[in-house]
Amino acid sequence: MTQTVSPSARQLPASAAVTDNDSAVVDVTALGEVLLGRWADIRRTARDLAGHDELHTPAGLSHHEHRDRVLKQLRYLVDAGAVHRAFPEYVGGQDNHGGNVAGFEELVMADPSLQIKAGVQWGLFGSAVMHLGNREHHEKWLPGIMSLEIPGCFAMTETGHGSDVASIATTATYEPETEEFILHTPFRAAWKDYIGNAALHGKAAVVFAHLITRGVDHGVHAFYVPLRGEDGNFLPGVGGEDDGVKGGLNGIDNGRLHFTHVRIPRTNLLNRYGDVAADGTYTSAIESPGRRFFTMIGTLVQGRVSLDGAAVAASKMALKTAIQYGVERRQFNASSDIREEVLLDYQQHQRRLLPRLATTYAAAFAHEELLQKFDDVFSGAHDTDEDRQDLETLAAGFKALSTWHALDTLQEAREACGGAGFLAENRLPLLRADLDIYATFEGDNTVLLQLVAKRLLADYANEFAGADFGVLARYVVGQATERTLVRSGLRQMVQTVADTGSEKKSAVALRDPKTQHDLLADRVSTMVAEVGGALREARRLPKEKAAAVFNENQHALIEAARAHTELLQWEAFTRGLERITDDGTRHVMTRLRDLFGLCLIEKNLAWYLMNGRLSAQRARTLGDYINRLLAKLRPHAVDLVDAFGYGPAQLRTSLASGEEKARQDEAMEYARLMRASGAAPLDEKILIQRRRQQERAAAKAKGRS
Amino acid sequence: MTQTVSPSARQLPASAAVTDNDSAVVDVTALGEVLLGRWADIRRTARDLAGHDELHTPAGLSHHEHRDRVLKQLRYLVDAGAVHRAFPEYVGGQDNHGGNVAGFEELVMADPSLQIKAGVQWGLFGSAVMHLGNREHHEKWLPGIMSLEIPGCFAMTETGHGSDVASIATTATYEPETEEFILHTPFRAAWKDYIGNAALHGKAAVVFAHLITRGVDHGVHAFYVPLRGEDGNFLPGVGGEDDGVKGGLNGIDNGRLHFTHVRIPRTNLLNRYGDVAADGTYTSAIESPGRRFFTMIGTLVQGRVSLDGAAVAASKMALKTAIQYGVERRQFNASSDIREEVLLDYQQHQRRLLPRLATTYAAAFAHEELLQKFDDVFSGAHDTDEDRQDLETLAAGFKALSTWHALDTLQEAREACGGAGFLAENRLPLLRADLDIYATFEGDNTVLLQLVAKRLLADYANEFAGADFGVLARYVVGQATERTLVRSGLRQMVQTVADTGSEKKSAVALRDPKTQHDLLADRVSTMVAEVGGALREARRLPKEKAAAVFNENQHALIEAARAHTELLQWEAFTRGLERITDDGTRHVMTRLRDLFGLCLIEKNLAWYLMNGRLSAQRARTLGDYINRLLAKLRPHAVDLVDAFGYGPAQLRTSLASGEEKARQDEAMEYARLMRASGAAPLDEKILIQRRRQQERAAAKAKGRS
Repeated sequence: MTQTVSPSARQLPASAAVTDNDSAVVDVTALGEVLLGRWADIRRTARDLAGHDELHTPAGLSHHEHRDRVLKQLRYLVDAGAVHRAFPEYVGGQDNHGGNVAGFEELVMADPSLQIKAGVQWGLFGSAVMHLGNREHHEKWLPGIMSLEIPGCFAMTETGHGSDVASIATTATYEPETEEFILHTPFRAAWKDYIGNAALHGKAAVVFAHLITRGVDHGVHAFYVPLRGEDGNFLPGVGGEDDGVKGGLNGIDNGRLHFTHVRIPRTNLLNRYGDVAADGTYTSAIESPGRRFFTMIGTLVQGRVSLDGAAVAASKMALKTAIQYGVERRQFNASSDIREEVLLDYQQHQRRLLPRLATTYAAAFAHEELLQKFDDVFSGAHDTDEDRQDLETLAAGFKALSTWHALDTLQEAREACGGAGFLAENRLPLLRADLDIYATFEGDNTVLLQLVAKRLLADYANEFAGADFGVLARYVVGQATERTLVRSGLRQMVQTVADTGSEKKSAVALRDPKTQHDLLADRVSTMVAEVGGALREARRLPKEKAAAVFNENQHALIEAARAHTELLQWEAFTRGLERITDDGTRHVMTRLRDLFGLCLIEKNLAWYLMNGRLSAQRARTLGDYINRLLAKLRPHAVDLVDAFGYGPAQLRTSLASGEEKARQDEAMEYARLMRASGAAPLDEKILIQRRRQQERAAAKAKGRS
Repeated sequence: MTQTVSPSARQLPASAAVTDNDSAVVDVTALGEVLLGRWADIRRTARDLAGHDELHTPAGLSHHEHRDRVLKQLRYLVDAGAVHRAFPEYVGGQDNHGGNVAGFEELVMADPSLQIKAGVQWGLFGSAVMHLGNREHHEKWLPGIMSLEIPGCFAMTETGHGSDVASIATTATYEPETEEFILHTPFRAAWKDYIGNAALHGKAAVVFAHLITRGVDHGVHAFYVPLRGEDGNFLPGVGGEDDGVKGGLNGIDNGRLHFTHVRIPRTNLLNRYGDVAADGTYTSAIESPGRRFFTMIGTLVQGRVSLDGAAVAASKMALKTAIQYGVERRQFNASSDIREEVLLDYQQHQRRLLPRLATTYAAAFAHEELLQKFDDVFSGAHDTDEDRQDLETLAAGFKALSTWHALDTLQEAREACGGAGFLAENRLPLLRADLDIYATFEGDNTVLLQLVAKRLLADYANEFAGADFGVLARYVVGQATERTLVRSGLRQMVQTVADTGSEKKSAVALRDPKTQHDLLADRVSTMVAEVGGALREARRLPKEKAAAVFNENQHALIEAARAHTELLQWEAFTRGLERITDDGTRHVMTRLRDLFGLCLIEKNLAWYLMNGRLSAQRARTLGDYINRLLAKLRPHAVDLVDAFGYGPAQLRTSLASGEEKARQDEAMEYARLMRASGAAPLDEKILIQRRRQQERAAAKAKGRS
């Protein structure tokens, strides 16, 4: 349980602060094993598969060609036995939920279009049948879904409603006379939109619609709906459009769907959480319609989990590329006339890449924990309501942060490789284009952070549930006192006195893991308490005014959710250090964790200063300390990206191939030979210097004569 | 002259702080005229042209088709008389440099590939002949360049050297016997790379190479080199490769070129700044090889100027799209059960879009001043060495900031439009993909900021040039005293006392333009002085150690350059306010300027706190004040993007067309009719409420009976 607001409740491992050891060496293989995690074998198999030529896509295909190719690639995955892991054993699966996602997310290295089209087919369409349907549904449809005999759609999003799924407008009205549901799209905004497999390949769909029976709307339910006949044409009443070319993922045929009084049998309702009897009676084991809806949606969390993993994988690829290139590429000659610096020797280049490397490791450790949690819930090992809520909150927060991080990292890596980074053959801009949509699908990231925030506020409220007025008053007084302290500047003075001493001493204090944790956790709990306090007041207001108060705190709330999720990443990184047995590796990785923590603190330094958590004096040492940390990590940068374990078959970019080094070496060797043979032309500057010397000598000689 | 470090030397207009006037109305037409600036007519013509169907490119073309289409579009520009403005009158031009760029940068609205291919042909290839060649060269080649009879390349960048042009390795060795230069590529890293028009269409090139004559290397010069014969094949000794598909700009045939002992006549040297006589004697009016090189390169500043303008135009397009969509799209229902909020009513949505709108205005005003300066220099109106240096520094800084800003804004706009924002038909992701490379071509942005920093340091050094030790000592003492004050916390205490009063009072102080300017300018000069001080010390060290000191300060230096350029943008925005005559418009625009300034201060708030420039108390009011400013600007958001003056022909996205509003209105009308006719199904929640009421009533009745 990592979701509580109170920092004291969290487990903090007792890993010691780094002591200086500049001869430390990273054991790349051992670190790679730690990163591979619990499903190492499946990851290895999936990486090998992702390296197969058949699963790669040459640049420059039209979207028509790309769509065809990816459909074929899906069949290749079926033949390779790569798509069945999550499904029940009684239809030929393995009931292995965590392993399935681990394997799936590695496919991003082959082609994100392939990954996402596979995700639509087996992760969304297939999962919906599995999680929302009954065993009859499974036996009827899952074999065809697994074999790709039935390519299908997950028809949830509507043009008029994106992340607000509860507000979709498609209806499924039950007619007892015929024992059929009548599926209907009432207006243009209710068309299903951006639906993978809808434009061309989908033969069926799981359609989300409001279930109406006996004049009552029971909320959003899922229905299995045939879309196209054997001839590939839409069935009567079904219509649609092609979404056309997109900013990326053009191997997927996204499209729109609409339904005009389309009839489906009563038994096509995926009825695990709500059912309609032949006479139209509605029944559900979950009484509250709201809770029922969130339970149904919650079963589909796997999409977010796997996007988190895919985003981490793409970030790893970007950093391996840019860092390898950064130690091969020479540019400008600051310290020598004949040998230029490699890019990664420049402080600014370190600043651009190494903090992103630290964040990638943090996100990787966090993802492994998320995957574990996901498996615990879906295997039934730990499947309480609270587990499911934790899982959902973690998936929302991590997915939001890691997908944004991947976009940022791919872009920075692209720029760090200059013009070469822009070529399709080097993949960075194409990967970035494909991953762009990860920031808003499976839940818009901003909306997801609000989901995290909602949970934080609920935890906050629980602390006061049933509390008598006295407790609350003490809390409020506590808050007020702290604010007074801050406002009066007294707290700063106290810290300033405490910080007296050398700058070095301050820096040492900031690299203590407990200090980092306290600073990060304190910020989260303070921010949540501030917003929570404001919203508590608002509860007594009329709905419209309460909404206004909420809106005035929306930005702060989202920032609190971000801070909370970053803290969880920091904790996961710190726990990850414990799994590293080799001293040298742990030493370097602890520095990297410090870099992650200190960069978070640097990013929010104003908050720490304004709120009296850091003195100005200590804060002033932070930037320089980070710069020194960068210089210390610089020699290990290549080892740290090599531990990601991607080889040429997965990377497929000349930028990480050693080609640049060969070119630079050739140029240096040429210059050396020219100088040695005396064939090098004289530089005009040297000529000018010589002439001046001669003039001075002549003037001198003239003076003497 | 806006380049001085000392803030006191800058002119600050006397525009007053905003007084509250919530009924202010923006005069969209008048504001649009202010934005159109000095070359309004040319901009209008160019926007009209950019709206022509012939210049648009349907999504989904292969890069082969796209390249063909863009070549045809270039011919269309020739026929439209849109490419000649900058060239000399004696070849049919207009000698209108500023107007030419103003017209050129608007073409980004048609298709960035078209803009950049036109830029390669007339802005780089043609400009190089114009600025580096003599009248004979002009009369011989410019007519064919202007008419597109000679599509050509600007062959500067080499695979092994990007932004470090002085280190290119191609050589042009003079042979007096034949009166020819022999152009040669010594190794693979010296291939010209990423060269537009090189893969297919280029018949000639301006090639940059080291000029060697009589055994002396006179540095980089430009040569006119025929590439392909009438049959389209490379001439003997010339070779190359296609760069293939790129992350964007796929309408341009970028490629590589190499030369194996290619002979060109002596007179093909573009000899304005350096010449070789028939006997091999080298002459130049500029004695210093370094200064000569920078003078030559300096004539090509127009590329950076126009990228700055194009980036601003693309940001405007993105914001018009996202803001229009933001006031039409409804999502979630925070304040009402039957009517959802439009996106832009949410505080977070305002936080995402309105500060970027403010930055776009700042960049637009800054660009107009840059263009004016560019025209002053190239028209000869103000063309001193200092003018040229100012121009180069401004172009470097503004281009870096505005191209990054455009990428950031296009991405945020894409995300703010959700899945719809990802469709090619809505252009945002394609524009972003095309503009990606703007961040590193015509000078890598990071390198450009270092160029700005170099100038800041030179200005700083000039302040001490010839200063005796006493002056310097006093300065150092001054610095030390200030640092002591900050360190001891005394300065904060002083400010804390000064800040006593209501939070409102603090906020008012921060919106005073002089306060904003002082805070921004103080940060620049302090940062430059800090780095300057460190580097001053380093000058006495051996080269390698001095380089190490420079490297340790590189990040700080780049941040200083960024801060300086942001200050210049703020000043341009503030001067821009003076050109607005309408009270209501100036009122709203002043608020927008405040938003820009305060967001800059918020971004660097830690610096202001650490350095004792703002008290914690005042700093704590900033976030809330910005949030209130956002709410006040919200009603004017559509007017502010409409003033950009782009219509449907330029925008070409359904997201800004009113289509979303029509869809949302239809949905609301449907719901209204259903309720009115009693056809709406009952919500299950209401059913549950009713049942509970009945149960309670029954229990009550039972109790009574």
